[in-house]
Amino acid sequence: MKDVAKLMDYRPEVKVIDATLRDGGLVNNFDFSDEFVKALYKTNIRAGVDYMEFGYKADSEMFDRNEFGKWKFCDDEDIRRIVGDNDSDLKLCVMADVGRCNYRKDIVDKKDSPVDLIRVATYLHQMPLAIKMVEDAKEKGYEVSCNIMAISAGRERDIAAALEMLGKSNVDCIYIVDSYGAIYPEEMQRLAAQYTEVGEKYGKQIGIHAHNNQQLAFANTIEAVGDGVNWLDATYMGMGRGAGNCQMELLLGFLKNPKYNVYPVIQFIEEHMMELKRKDITWGYDVQYLITGLLNRHPRSAIKFTEKKREDYSRFFRDIIDDQI
Amino acid sequence: MKDVAKLMDYRPEVKVIDATLRDGGLVNNFDFSDEFVKALYKTNIRAGVDYMEFGYKADSEMFDRNEFGKWKFCDDEDIRRIVGDNDSDLKLCVMADVGRCNYRKDIVDKKDSPVDLIRVATYLHQMPLAIKMVEDAKEKGYEVSCNIMAISAGRERDIAAALEMLGKSNVDCIYIVDSYGAIYPEEMQRLAAQYTEVGEKYGKQIGIHAHNNQQLAFANTIEAVGDGVNWLDATYMGMGRGAGNCQMELLLGFLKNPKYNVYPVIQFIEEHMMELKRKDITWGYDVQYLITGLLNRHPRSAIKFTEKKREDYSRFFRDIIDDQI
Repeated sequence: MKDVAKLMDYRPEVKVIDATLRDGGLVNNFDFSDEFVKALYKTNIRAGVDYMEFGYKADSEMFDRNEFGKWKFCDDEDIRRIVGDNDSDLKLCVMADVGRCNYRKDIVDKKDSPVDLIRVATYLHQMPLAIKMVEDAKEKGYEVSCNIMAISAGRERDIAAALEMLGKSNVDCIYIVDSYGAIYPEEMQRLAAQYTEVGEKYGKQIGIHAHNNQQLAFANTIEAVGDGVNWLDATYMGMGRGAGNCQMELLLGFLKNPKYNVYPVIQFIEEHMMELKRKDITWGYDVQYLITGLLNRHPRSAIKFTEKKREDYSRFFRDIIDDQI
Repeated sequence: MKDVAKLMDYRPEVKVIDATLRDGGLVNNFDFSDEFVKALYKTNIRAGVDYMEFGYKADSEMFDRNEFGKWKFCDDEDIRRIVGDNDSDLKLCVMADVGRCNYRKDIVDKKDSPVDLIRVATYLHQMPLAIKMVEDAKEKGYEVSCNIMAISAGRERDIAAALEMLGKSNVDCIYIVDSYGAIYPEEMQRLAAQYTEVGEKYGKQIGIHAHNNQQLAFANTIEAVGDGVNWLDATYMGMGRGAGNCQMELLLGFLKNPKYNVYPVIQFIEEHMMELKRKDITWGYDVQYLITGLLNRHPRSAIKFTEKKREDYSRFFRDIIDDQI
């Protein structure tokens, strides 16, 4: 049972990362207006958020710039247009997907970039290239995290091996990522114990990125922070792929560090997020996501179901368990 | 940390109570069609649900029968019209609110009623009358639970005193009720320890009824069952007052007893619950409920905010913290 005093008090090491533009960008094809992004940046500063993720560093030789909003590519000039010299305590980050990022060319030296943190996102089977990208970013002067995705479908020994590889690397933070929204809090507690043990052995921070397929994104995040996980991802209104993420408004309401302030988040929701909802941009918990989460599947079929505005949940359930999807 | 084997396996003592008509009735003024109620009854049987709550036993001298649907009163004849002789394993229950139920007159002997379980709902300050109602129902031959509401605003010593009173009574089950949706899972763990200790001492079952103000109704329910709480309330699509309850579809997906089957629940949602949604009957998590949950307040102001279809969340937040609501 967690100690009351620890929960009433706070750990200054805890950091909050706003992933709205990045994970939310997967919902609206990264089509955020500059006004929206500027307001989000200012809100994060007022709310005491520690890092703001702008999007992906996608390889423009693989992805057509005309087909996506600019935050799929996160050119430094686009970030500077929002933040100027970023004269604030808010640090900036971008995500670099293993196999979808031309990291040698598109990630320049930190001294020439407004970005502070590179988040390398990888699947378990891509670890060697992930480590190469981690070391490249580290050499260029960045803070670096490594986010191992879809671990609910990974074998425990493979996860242990990946953690050892990362422990011996120069990465700063290793993330627990529940891509499928399939993990229950008691499993999260075990994962947190496994990851923090490696973290203590090698001097790495541990982070958590949760999905809300079973309405457990916030619950898993506060489970993890109670277990010693320090880097916490959240998004405004939970905006993110499929069922979305841990809600920033819930997380800042929970955290006790006086630097955090939930009120600007509520203002931003009212002034900016509701407009996205009115434009019929859809994310968040629904029965189809519960089904893929429960069955530990990638949410892609549930996302398609959502896009088609289908409501025949029982057909979807039957097709999934009958391996038709 | 909870034992893997215990979570992979199941406790046959765990019971699921469908509270859709009762807590959901608070959303639509108990205006469910007989077709809906019959289909729900059949679905609960197919899904392996243990108890179905039909509504309240409200005093018709206090409440006008013309102003509410019949499930606010739950006359035995109305229940019989749905269930016949209830030739099934599904047990039936109703809620009797302390101070709003003429229990001497309206609760008849069990042998003359289709109801199996009387759920006495009370606030901490009403305990003596609650105990009187518990003993009355017990003498009439029913199973009886006592649901102590709004405990997040109660003092720990008062809760301890109430638990001792109930321990010494003939009640069968004592409920942890998070009326305000203010309790975090680690607090739920402590409450479960406190309640189950009394339960073991006096031979009582412990139950959990959660609200979803902070998207923690399901998380708190599975926390509690992992801690030895056996009676679990849930509602279809979480339908219930304000932010609603623990979702039946999430709970039956989680529970491992082979008797439970989530598929009929998903069918019912598609065939019946979506129609309520289309009729603009509104419940479930939203920012206003997060605010009252976070601040440990009764949700009534958030319910009014919802009814007026307001979206000025920041004004609502300011009014609440400024004690204007």
